[in-house]
Amino acid sequence: MPISEFDIIARYFTPASVGRDDVLVGVGDDGAVLQVPAGSALVVSTDTLVRDVHFSDDYSPEDIGYKALAVNLSDLAAMAAQPAWASLALTLPRADEGWIADFARGFFDVAEAHGVALVGGDLTRGPLTITVGVYGFAPTGLSLRRSGARPGDEIFVTGTLGDAALCLAGLPSPHRAYLETRLRRPTPRVAEGLSVRGLASGGIDISDGLAADLGHLLTQSGCGATVYLDRLPLSPALRALDDPDRRRALALAGGDDYELCFTVPPQQRPVLESRWRGAPITCIGRIESSPGLRWISADGSAYHPPREGYRHF
Amino acid sequence: MPISEFDIIARYFTPASVGRDDVLVGVGDDGAVLQVPAGSALVVSTDTLVRDVHFSDDYSPEDIGYKALAVNLSDLAAMAAQPAWASLALTLPRADEGWIADFARGFFDVAEAHGVALVGGDLTRGPLTITVGVYGFAPTGLSLRRSGARPGDEIFVTGTLGDAALCLAGLPSPHRAYLETRLRRPTPRVAEGLSVRGLASGGIDISDGLAADLGHLLTQSGCGATVYLDRLPLSPALRALDDPDRRRALALAGGDDYELCFTVPPQQRPVLESRWRGAPITCIGRIESSPGLRWISADGSAYHPPREGYRHF
Repeated sequence: MPISEFDIIARYFTPASVGRDDVLVGVGDDGAVLQVPAGSALVVSTDTLVRDVHFSDDYSPEDIGYKALAVNLSDLAAMAAQPAWASLALTLPRADEGWIADFARGFFDVAEAHGVALVGGDLTRGPLTITVGVYGFAPTGLSLRRSGARPGDEIFVTGTLGDAALCLAGLPSPHRAYLETRLRRPTPRVAEGLSVRGLASGGIDISDGLAADLGHLLTQSGCGATVYLDRLPLSPALRALDDPDRRRALALAGGDDYELCFTVPPQQRPVLESRWRGAPITCIGRIESSPGLRWISADGSAYHPPREGYRHF
Repeated sequence: MPISEFDIIARYFTPASVGRDDVLVGVGDDGAVLQVPAGSALVVSTDTLVRDVHFSDDYSPEDIGYKALAVNLSDLAAMAAQPAWASLALTLPRADEGWIADFARGFFDVAEAHGVALVGGDLTRGPLTITVGVYGFAPTGLSLRRSGARPGDEIFVTGTLGDAALCLAGLPSPHRAYLETRLRRPTPRVAEGLSVRGLASGGIDISDGLAADLGHLLTQSGCGATVYLDRLPLSPALRALDDPDRRRALALAGGDDYELCFTVPPQQRPVLESRWRGAPITCIGRIESSPGLRWISADGSAYHPPREGYRHF
């Protein structure tokens, strides 16, 4: 008889979990019982990874476990929330213990790095699909929303853009190992999200690509923006790409970048720079009252991106 | 171009959601921001439904939407929690608007009946899989756990056992419509869970069948139990089945019954009966200090069930 779902949970998903005092009941009951700190709101988010859509068969199970939690923490980071707990709904074609052990190792690598306790989930048989739920806190009124950007605010992004998409494009590159890490093991910008609490007016994670996600922020804020292409932060790997059109397309619309984009009123910029910790940030443009997203090339001419980001359907 | 994920969310999943004052940020940002009431703990649970495992192609999309939320609320009921919010991670092979509209109707039927607001989720392309997360409250210290049963406590179940499994068995029955409803549109025992707050010593939902789930409760409580087969509550549909072995097997191990099993100290029974509201309850046996689960037939002899419940692997 293959290993049962209960044995899998007991063997691979219970002992590795981070201990937290605010977990009153964890894995192993009908639900988890959790204590949100007084004065904080609960911030929740959930994302699904599907085989052949979000990852291919050349991902190791460890990469998949890592990425499943990391992309979810990226959403909490974009809300300026402190991560606390996660749930894992794992659908597997069969109970392959080696696969599960590797997956759990990747998942708990991320969980441990961010002090996140696994508090529950579900294990079912079916096509490989992973849905993670994450739960965090933000002091009431201090979560970061998409709707708060105002004309005059400066637009920042963390890290570099387009690396994951360049990796997926499969071009030969001396930076292959770097690109693979960017695609398979994205670093959720949790510390960065926390650093802008109370400073940033709006924020979003740019998992669907800068153009699409900044577009959402603008729509929800009722504003427009101008962004300068020559200010976009590109890694040495992307800068090494000869074709400038392709470079731009990857940076603007590639997707799978788990960087943050946020807006800050200009008078707050000195505070931001003094308080900042984490990945480098770059100011790429500014919010304007006129709707629409205007891209300006290095020579000052308008640029129109060919497509706007990842579409699921 | 097919309808985009953003249009699907805006059209089918945003307007129908119940409004709640404790949803500070709902669908449409990187995460939801929620306010747990002072003095309450947060109770969370998550369950996945996979096509061909948890439902077949003769389920209507409305049934699937209904069941996806109902089975999750059953877990909150088993924790004696008051449901408040839900998230929905929906993976679909294609963006079929008719299917989505029907699915949403079933989902929101249940949500509205229980005052549950949809606060977020994810929509992805892939094999049909639905993961719902539910969030509720219980006053600190008053959630119901699997581990609290004590020798001498009486064991109760809500409703009737084995109907869903009888439906799945596909036998001809004059009760077909009743059985289909039991299988496809189970009623989560939310009011029943709330009625036993502070009275019941332990509780669990019996979605994997009474034998397996009562077994979990006993293991976690460090106890055993005796259960009397002639006390098991059976519907007229199940009683109409001629074969007594099959009747018993369905009632004990059929699974997909979203009833509650809970234990109550005998001195609390009058309070339980006076306070009870909801589906009928039946006392089926009692908790004992000696480990193991003993089944007693009508003639007083021991009965040994052939199998213990649903196994995913």
